Amino acid sequence: MTFADEARALDAADPLAAARDLFVLPDGVIYLDGNSLGALPRATAARIGQVIEDEWGERLIRSWNAAADDAPGWIDLPQRVGGKIAPLIGAARDEVLACDSTSVNLFKLLAAALALRPGRRVVASEPGSFPTDLYMIQGLQTLGLAKQRLAEPGQLLRALDQDVAAVLLSHVHYKTGQVHDMAAITAAAHAVGALVIWDLSHSAGAIAVDLTGCDADMAVGCGYKYLCGGPGAPAFLYIAERLHADIANPLSGWMGHAAPFAFTDDYAPASGIARMLTGTPPILGLAALECGVETVAALGMPALAAKSAALSQLLVRAAAAICPAMTLAGPDLTSPRGSHVSLRHPQAYAICQALIARGVIGDFRDPDILRLGLTPAYLGFVDVWRAVEQLAAVLDTREWDQPQFHQRLAVT
Amino acid sequence: MTFADEARALDAADPLAAARDLFVLPDGVIYLDGNSLGALPRATAARIGQVIEDEWGERLIRSWNAAADDAPGWIDLPQRVGGKIAPLIGAARDEVLACDSTSVNLFKLLAAALALRPGRRVVASEPGSFPTDLYMIQGLQTLGLAKQRLAEPGQLLRALDQDVAAVLLSHVHYKTGQVHDMAAITAAAHAVGALVIWDLSHSAGAIAVDLTGCDADMAVGCGYKYLCGGPGAPAFLYIAERLHADIANPLSGWMGHAAPFAFTDDYAPASGIARMLTGTPPILGLAALECGVETVAALGMPALAAKSAALSQLLVRAAAAICPAMTLAGPDLTSPRGSHVSLRHPQAYAICQALIARGVIGDFRDPDILRLGLTPAYLGFVDVWRAVEQLAAVLDTREWDQPQFHQRLAVT
Repeated sequence: MTFADEARALDAADPLAAARDLFVLPDGVIYLDGNSLGALPRATAARIGQVIEDEWGERLIRSWNAAADDAPGWIDLPQRVGGKIAPLIGAARDEVLACDSTSVNLFKLLAAALALRPGRRVVASEPGSFPTDLYMIQGLQTLGLAKQRLAEPGQLLRALDQDVAAVLLSHVHYKTGQVHDMAAITAAAHAVGALVIWDLSHSAGAIAVDLTGCDADMAVGCGYKYLCGGPGAPAFLYIAERLHADIANPLSGWMGHAAPFAFTDDYAPASGIARMLTGTPPILGLAALECGVETVAALGMPALAAKSAALSQLLVRAAAAICPAMTLAGPDLTSPRGSHVSLRHPQAYAICQALIARGVIGDFRDPDILRLGLTPAYLGFVDVWRAVEQLAAVLDTREWDQPQFHQRLAVT
Repeated sequence: MTFADEARALDAADPLAAARDLFVLPDGVIYLDGNSLGALPRATAARIGQVIEDEWGERLIRSWNAAADDAPGWIDLPQRVGGKIAPLIGAARDEVLACDSTSVNLFKLLAAALALRPGRRVVASEPGSFPTDLYMIQGLQTLGLAKQRLAEPGQLLRALDQDVAAVLLSHVHYKTGQVHDMAAITAAAHAVGALVIWDLSHSAGAIAVDLTGCDADMAVGCGYKYLCGGPGAPAFLYIAERLHADIANPLSGWMGHAAPFAFTDDYAPASGIARMLTGTPPILGLAALECGVETVAALGMPALAAKSAALSQLLVRAAAAICPAMTLAGPDLTSPRGSHVSLRHPQAYAICQALIARGVIGDFRDPDILRLGLTPAYLGFVDVWRAVEQLAAVLDTREWDQPQFHQRLAVT
């Protein structure tokens, strides 16, 4: 069977095939960058129009208490959207909040974890982690509150000792798609008394995550990738319920206060995870994120995860067959992986730009990675095969070797 | 001349009278809560529709570099929107960023100010400040990085000494509308070597602010009040250019890195104010804020400030004449004031609810303040007079003395 026949057969048997119609996807584009910015759900534009014209324009300030007659108000959106993310990551509804950016949430959880482990200063991670994860540790280090300890990939368990307050790791590596063993690393950290903060930015909505089953402590994640919340969507944070009573938010803003509208001078944390809120919730962003999460969650995480794996299988095998100049950067097909496939080539930047000119949108990660995101909610198997064909054409004709494909853009 | 005649004459002579048509205001409502949530600019819904359907839906990830052919990309929106806020607050364009929430920005500036004054720990403020201002100081205190010192209103200058790293004050008090003397307090703080952080949440877009003329160091402010950026809009921060080279962002996320897309392990700050960015910019929120700022800024700050003062004059005089049961909580008409008028009454909560039932929307601030916001961009003088008439009717008939007006809502 050819790859083309195989892809058509997989699409015909795909229980999620109809889900593509839940999203707006431009004509002539095969979109393999949903791991950076998820596509637009068809429901979002109308919902945001309603928020702007009815809830803001007509009800004005009253929407904080009730966004329509007999509807809940804006004020609880961080909890409501968090509660809808929870089943995608194996958490309970009251363990997740949608708020702030991933970076700001990392700061909150890192500082909170350090405060839970007095006398310990070390935050352990790996070089080559997503940069903002390391930069937020370094910010705490500059404040004198943390000490960064980086262990080479695969060596992390040897770096754990009684000085380690927290481990911060991406569940899925943003470049290679490699997956860390959440249960094993969490257990090893717990064995030395450390907490673990998982960055789920490249996991949530794409592959199976079981925070509760792994006895995870804390997590953050991104709203604008597989959750399809829109550009710069609010992020989320997770804290296991067993930690709620003792957790302190270093960004102790009024929205995390026990009684924000009592306007008292002294901070007193709200009960539960609500204390991790800081400023006024961003309503447009949260409403768009809610649309994305509802659209994705309705498809069911098991079906999404199975399709993600099948899409990766096809891409890796097809690329190996007809794009021999590219080498697989991440795990092979026998290991767990995230929902993107990364292929190395010294000219990866120009190859990526030449592919985009052909309507196949992936992205480039320094220095030599072409990253192809395989969002299970809206991507088909024939899309994947056609993208690999286009890649082969770019390579075979050296189409990338044109000056316009070497111009570096600000955002890659 | 009756108040009604006076109000009509003022509207007839108002150079900003036509600006009301730039906003959506519901029928049957007199909206006196623009100091909490500004009204919807007429341009916003279409602009956000374009961001969602064209920029996100069709161009997808490419909009980070260019949101349309030959248009700038999303990536610079924090700087572009900040640059448009700058002239409203007497700042240079490259001294302002639109990002995060007011609370998060307070944390960034407080920690940065403390780092600029090594050996000093004290942050001075006043009891009764807007709660999140104090709570963010307290968060830094819990981290061991700051010590809060509160001086009773009017006594702040006596609390300044060589231990004070920073002073944090609201320019306009959120309850009373009282205005601090920015130039005098800044000079007094500088005399002991301290920095000042001004909270402009109740100033920006409503009254004259001259950060440069006052030699101000740092400021934050809110995007969803007089700037009409929408519910939970991004906030802004200001840092005087003379401090840029030495400033450090404690929330050192990837968007403030010198080369975010080089994906290096080590944080290195961007030059200029861009280093104060943290996470991925919230595009829907920033685009809506840009609409609000453009709408307000086009009216000109001198005209807005003059109208704000005239609206306050009318309200204070009319309320004194026909609502004698209410007492003025803030400055009298001989002193500088913000753009809201606060009136005290032991039953202020129920009076506020009874007014809202009549279509006059103000808000309540614990324990006894009815707060009436006078947004110069879209409020007329007849609106103000009619609101005072409604207030007099509520008081004269004791209409507030019904059970439904005493039920406490979650958000007040």
